[in-house]
Amino acid sequence: MDCFNDLADFSAAEIRELITLARRLDDKPEPRALEGKVLSLLFLSPSLRTLASFQSAMIRLGGGTFVIAPNMSIHGLESRSGIVMDGVAAEHIHEAVPVIASYGDAIGIRAFAKRENLDDDLADREFRELTALVDTPYINMESAINHPCQSLADWKTMGDLGIPANGGKFVLSWSWHPQPLPLAVPAATLHMAALRGMDVTVLRPEGFALPDTIMEKARQAAATSGGTVTETDDRAAAMQDSQVIYVNSWSSMQQYGNKHAQDKFKLELRDWCVDESWFDKAASDCRFMHCLPVRRGVTVTDRILDGSRSVVIAEARNRMLVQMAVLHRMLSGS
Amino acid sequence: MDCFNDLADFSAAEIRELITLARRLDDKPEPRALEGKVLSLLFLSPSLRTLASFQSAMIRLGGGTFVIAPNMSIHGLESRSGIVMDGVAAEHIHEAVPVIASYGDAIGIRAFAKRENLDDDLADREFRELTALVDTPYINMESAINHPCQSLADWKTMGDLGIPANGGKFVLSWSWHPQPLPLAVPAATLHMAALRGMDVTVLRPEGFALPDTIMEKARQAAATSGGTVTETDDRAAAMQDSQVIYVNSWSSMQQYGNKHAQDKFKLELRDWCVDESWFDKAASDCRFMHCLPVRRGVTVTDRILDGSRSVVIAEARNRMLVQMAVLHRMLSGS
Amino acid sequence: MDCFNDLADFSAAEIRELITLARRLDDKPEPRALEGKVLSLLFLSPSLRTLASFQSAMIRLGGGTFVIAPNMSIHGLESRSGIVMDGVAAEHIHEAVPVIASYGDAIGIRAFAKRENLDDDLADREFRELTALVDTPYINMESAINHPCQSLADWKTMGDLGIPANGGKFVLSWSWHPQPLPLAVPAATLHMAALRGMDVTVLRPEGFALPDTIMEKARQAAATSGGTVTETDDRAAAMQDSQVIYVNSWSSMQQYGNKHAQDKFKLELRDWCVDESWFDKAASDCRFMHCLPVRRGVTVTDRILDGSRSVVIAEARNRMLVQMAVLHRMLSGS
Repeated sequence: MDCFNDLADFSAAEIRELITLARRLDDKPEPRALEGKVLSLLFLSPSLRTLASFQSAMIRLGGGTFVIAPNMSIHGLESRSGIVMDGVAAEHIHEAVPVIASYGDAIGIRAFAKRENLDDDLADREFRELTALVDTPYINMESAINHPCQSLADWKTMGDLGIPANGGKFVLSWSWHPQPLPLAVPAATLHMAALRGMDVTVLRPEGFALPDTIMEKARQAAATSGGTVTETDDRAAAMQDSQVIYVNSWSSMQQYGNKHAQDKFKLELRDWCVDESWFDKAASDCRFMHCLPVRRGVTVTDRILDGSRSVVIAEARNRMLVQMAVLHRMLSGS
Repeated sequence: MDCFNDLADFSAAEIRELITLARRLDDKPEPRALEGKVLSLLFLSPSLRTLASFQSAMIRLGGGTFVIAPNMSIHGLESRSGIVMDGVAAEHIHEAVPVIASYGDAIGIRAFAKRENLDDDLADREFRELTALVDTPYINMESAINHPCQSLADWKTMGDLGIPANGGKFVLSWSWHPQPLPLAVPAATLHMAALRGMDVTVLRPEGFALPDTIMEKARQAAATSGGTVTETDDRAAAMQDSQVIYVNSWSSMQQYGNKHAQDKFKLELRDWCVDESWFDKAASDCRFMHCLPVRRGVTVTDRILDGSRSVVIAEARNRMLVQMAVLHRMLSGS
Repeated sequence: MDCFNDLADFSAAEIRELITLARRLDDKPEPRALEGKVLSLLFLSPSLRTLASFQSAMIRLGGGTFVIAPNMSIHGLESRSGIVMDGVAAEHIHEAVPVIASYGDAIGIRAFAKRENLDDDLADREFRELTALVDTPYINMESAINHPCQSLADWKTMGDLGIPANGGKFVLSWSWHPQPLPLAVPAATLHMAALRGMDVTVLRPEGFALPDTIMEKARQAAATSGGTVTETDDRAAAMQDSQVIYVNSWSSMQQYGNKHAQDKFKLELRDWCVDESWFDKAASDCRFMHCLPVRRGVTVTDRILDGSRSVVIAEARNRMLVQMAVLHRMLSGS
């Protein structure tokens, strides 16, 4: 495996094999599988789960990691091309990224969307520029438009819980949030549920439709798997018989990158905070999923998050397990 | 071992077994004992010895650690209950702590006293709230009222030096310090020396008596071990024939949490800085102990700290060794 | 090996053995050579390559590291002697350094020049004070006046590329840089190339001659190896037939430590930015070397740095490999 960047690079069968491997490594540890192997971790954006789960994953397989993050003890990093570096930044990513990669057998990179230009973010332009500088296998630890480790963990979580693939009803719902958030998780989650063969509904208020390229990619995945993809702003219709509600927030595509305009769009939308009333017509054991971090009382009520519907901790632990599978496949030579 | 939170949870014999194991691991390394095992380290307060010694301890046993600290590359953490998270903090400890714990086979947690409410600190309320969120074994890396790793290291250090348990005379002395410091180290140290069976004197100026619950817990430990516990502000009497002076500083319990009032209490107490004159009537080889960090010229003179009485570096190295024993007992399955 | 502080402590033959070992460890990994061994890493100055490459080196040999840096979660560190520590710093290096060292089998220390007093920096006074506090083997990870890991990596890089030792022509050139930089890399590089037996020219503008002690040390190394050491401000003469140009910047020794004066010295020197014209009379495959980080458009043009002359990424990867050799020799007991 040369890279783990997008679930769309894999067939549903290949994804199920990775999940099977993740379960095997959980049941039967292999603490020498990657002995002496190193995963470089480059964080250009903040992290908790990803930071911790990749370090733990490598230790459990007998290898190790090192972490480079801009707020650590390093020189500032410049990323613009053709620049005269006469300011604060002492190093350019054109040197820093290949060097960091050269110390590892693989590299994980995180770089959130800049939210300056929608087309750049949809094309994952910054992330592609970074990975173009790397000679080793690489892992997308969340880019502008993708978060394959989260999606693989969520796929496994649904499998662990017995939520059906074909015929299972999956709602991806927008929620209120004080910040205009990036598209990575909603885009990756929508595609994942469609590729798993589920009947997926995107539930969002008017003005928050996902970009066509994201919807179209999900529809193509659904076409191969027997799933469906629809969208609506009708909460009751969307939640009818749903087995999962996966909650996230994202910017409106109108005036993308303009926080002030985004704040105005959202003024009337504080009721997009998931509470028990959302589940009136849902399947009785409908689950609440979220990639975390989640804002209590803003995105979801304490009652839901602390109740039996919530599977957010299981999702987070599955991050570690599926990443162990990816790393094992990528680095063990077997 | 499900948790290592308080020496009071162990008999003196069990503590001696841990110290024997620590010595064995120092003499005969076991670099595969914990292969593939992970210790999560959550620092909600600053650290040097604890941060370094736990990482080193796990490597020496063949496992590894990851570190999460608020000033690292993570989102802000909220800890209040029932709150609408509409501010800076993007994540609540109710999610963060279980997630961090889920990536490890055990977790170490450090959270100093908030010093807002004495009863809360004496009850270790915040630390209990944190550990209630954890499913794995846990280790107290210093809480509001306890520091069992330090106490276990200090017990071993006295044993290494041949300082007698029953009949040994131990002085726990207050010292001047610019900050009002928490009760964790004095409370844990007093209890440890009493449980070891020593004749313990708390030496402190008027107004700095330790809370009754701390004194009473130490007296109960002394009752089981044949030791004694007394307190005084008479330096000469306290130091008479003493074999150890263990120095620390702590807040006055009067106006606890009020730094301004504490500063006034201390105005006349700058002479509570340990120098050679303190040792006039002490045993000739009376040792100086301190958990570090220590302020030179404030808590103790350079001459004492750099002289042959001081065993502070040995105490610090023993942190690593006793933690190896705790981790081995907790995680090796043997 | 008790310390790795200066290439001058080794014969050229011993250095070649270390490089042979580095190549062997690259070809035939030894992931259990240092199992259970710990390298303490103390960074009193910022780092990227050193931080990452030492962590990776230890993992590849089966051991591990921990990192202590002032901007991490630790108390402030005091370094002055005889001081009353009544300010912000809660700990003195006289305790911190021995404690950190006591948790490792060896320690790496980085402490850049203070640039307050040239004689102190030339004598590596601060670094010697730090290592005097350490009982374990230690590694110089860049001090005021030395950077032996970089020099060993550069020696290996030239060998990898087939650049001749005796008879090879090596130019160490000053370049423009917005900051007055320390002497560690130019001093170590000059000595390394001389000890390798090369014909070395120091190319620098008037006012930027290296101190006599540095020149003299290099001349002594050249005398043992059959190399030569000269200096000039004549770029064309220096570059004639050169096989390597190694670029760095350093303070003028005039008004050392006075940034304002240094800025004035440099006003007319912006053309000391390496571009293709510098190579007119050089050997056709003359290489561009730099220890990184490097400022594009300031020290060197994009065209050179991105072109086939540049070997900066190979130099950086060799940092890891030669450090593995040093650690193997220092800690494997073989």
